[in-house]
Amino acid sequence: MKLLDLPNEVIICEVGPRDGLQNEKKILTVTQKVELIERVAFAGIRVIEIGSFVHPKAVPAMADTDEVALRISRHDEVEYRALVLNKKGMERALAAGVTKVKLTVSASPTHSRENSNKSPEEVVRNFSECAEFARDRGLTISAAVATAFGYYAEGTIGLEMIIPLVDFFLSIGVRELSMSDSTGLANPKQVYEYMSFLKKHYPEIDWTLHAHDTRGMAMANIFAAMQAGIKRFDSSFAGIGGCPFAPGASGNIATEDAVHMFHEMGIKTGVDLEQMLGIARTVQKLVGHTTDSSMLKASECRMRKNC
Amino acid sequence: MKLLDLPNEVIICEVGPRDGLQNEKKILTVTQKVELIERVAFAGIRVIEIGSFVHPKAVPAMADTDEVALRISRHDEVEYRALVLNKKGMERALAAGVTKVKLTVSASPTHSRENSNKSPEEVVRNFSECAEFARDRGLTISAAVATAFGYYAEGTIGLEMIIPLVDFFLSIGVRELSMSDSTGLANPKQVYEYMSFLKKHYPEIDWTLHAHDTRGMAMANIFAAMQAGIKRFDSSFAGIGGCPFAPGASGNIATEDAVHMFHEMGIKTGVDLEQMLGIARTVQKLVGHTTDSSMLKASECRMRKNC
Repeated sequence: MKLLDLPNEVIICEVGPRDGLQNEKKILTVTQKVELIERVAFAGIRVIEIGSFVHPKAVPAMADTDEVALRISRHDEVEYRALVLNKKGMERALAAGVTKVKLTVSASPTHSRENSNKSPEEVVRNFSECAEFARDRGLTISAAVATAFGYYAEGTIGLEMIIPLVDFFLSIGVRELSMSDSTGLANPKQVYEYMSFLKKHYPEIDWTLHAHDTRGMAMANIFAAMQAGIKRFDSSFAGIGGCPFAPGASGNIATEDAVHMFHEMGIKTGVDLEQMLGIARTVQKLVGHTTDSSMLKASECRMRKNC
Repeated sequence: MKLLDLPNEVIICEVGPRDGLQNEKKILTVTQKVELIERVAFAGIRVIEIGSFVHPKAVPAMADTDEVALRISRHDEVEYRALVLNKKGMERALAAGVTKVKLTVSASPTHSRENSNKSPEEVVRNFSECAEFARDRGLTISAAVATAFGYYAEGTIGLEMIIPLVDFFLSIGVRELSMSDSTGLANPKQVYEYMSFLKKHYPEIDWTLHAHDTRGMAMANIFAAMQAGIKRFDSSFAGIGGCPFAPGASGNIATEDAVHMFHEMGIKTGVDLEQMLGIARTVQKLVGHTTDSSMLKASECRMRKNC
């Protein structure tokens, strides 16, 4: 039997405090956010995306990222990073003691224009000064390509649209890059092919898959990415980050679902699943609605009946 | 780049009328069931599990399978099959014009005792007379191993517990066998390993994966099974069949989610996705609650906003 090529361990980045909470109608308090972030670190997560330094009017739920960053207790073994779009954001990150930032561009020209009124090329060009700022001040930059697999307007996003962005990020010193399936359009065959290609042609980059479960394919996409050699995955507590207009609709893949699948396959994460389930329950209470977390639903069911 | 070994086409068996509806509190009328089955056939599904001939007290929702079987319009290209547990069921199937039956045994001794007060060995031994009956009357038998990957009491179900059951089924003439992850405990690594082994050692058998999404792993399990050479998959309209105590909890993988993933990967199913989405919407209305269908939630979201 041909054996599957799976890693022995993976690194999970908890993006719930940023990509999850930014989509929620209910805005949490700084104290609530700080507590969640500290519990996530305590559960064994080693990379946490704590928020974003973007214009408060654009993303009101993230307006307090400065205060959150200043108030969390830091652990040496945990990487706290935040999303940044320009030099102003870099300055805020620095002032709040955040030493790792993530620059994000959308590969879909339509999505890019909708969000920033700029083309992807214009967006990344602005990142040059961010990279320079980071070099001068000792910040580390990572990056993400959003809508990296598809978007409604364009349909499938081809690798030829990704490659120039990757080349640019490489030229400004980025060595950690996330491929984000922002709207859950990627399928496992595509993920396997894209990630295999990128890993082969850009071995100097640490690649991450950021999977959304909008069409139920996130876990299959994670499984496919592992077969392409990917060992870093973004996920969100309770699976928040979905469409605000479809209650219970999937957002980011739930951290507890991903951790459970990894552990069942004997792949180490360093994360305590029971603690993550507890955090996910708290998140559901705080945002005030159920979310698409298979593990939470399964545990509720088991409490009632062995099913 | 190493290419993934995926099939060009797959066969989907719609098990909603049986494994889905049998778990619902609301019992549909014969007319409602007949309409659903006919719409499923019209949408291009070529194998439909229309019900089960078991004791009406054991599964009240299936008590009318005889009438459903007699009333559906049949299409030559569609296989209509029903679940049967003993000779009495075989007789009912024959009387109702059902020419293909599925014999089911649970690999978990605990689950088997809970359901039938018999060990798996005792259950299959009783199937000998069913097989004889089938041979004499020209019925075709297929079979399923339930809880084939795990159960709470035993934890993981090892292949050594499956093999004697497969050998027995083979000896009584079964050439089509479903491995059922009845409680959604299987993980994709395990599915790949089990299905690879079984396909290699029993090439004379047509293997099916019956995946439940209880812990969010069904789509990854389907993707893993395809890599092991499996081309037959059970699924349920709207994803019904979940735990009645956890509203919205996942049951069988939703047919529309599986069909969508196959099509996105260029794998043919012969099924019209739009029609399946329409059927899934009707199913949700009939059972009176939302279900775990990613595609239904995604389409609701798209109607409101491009997300």
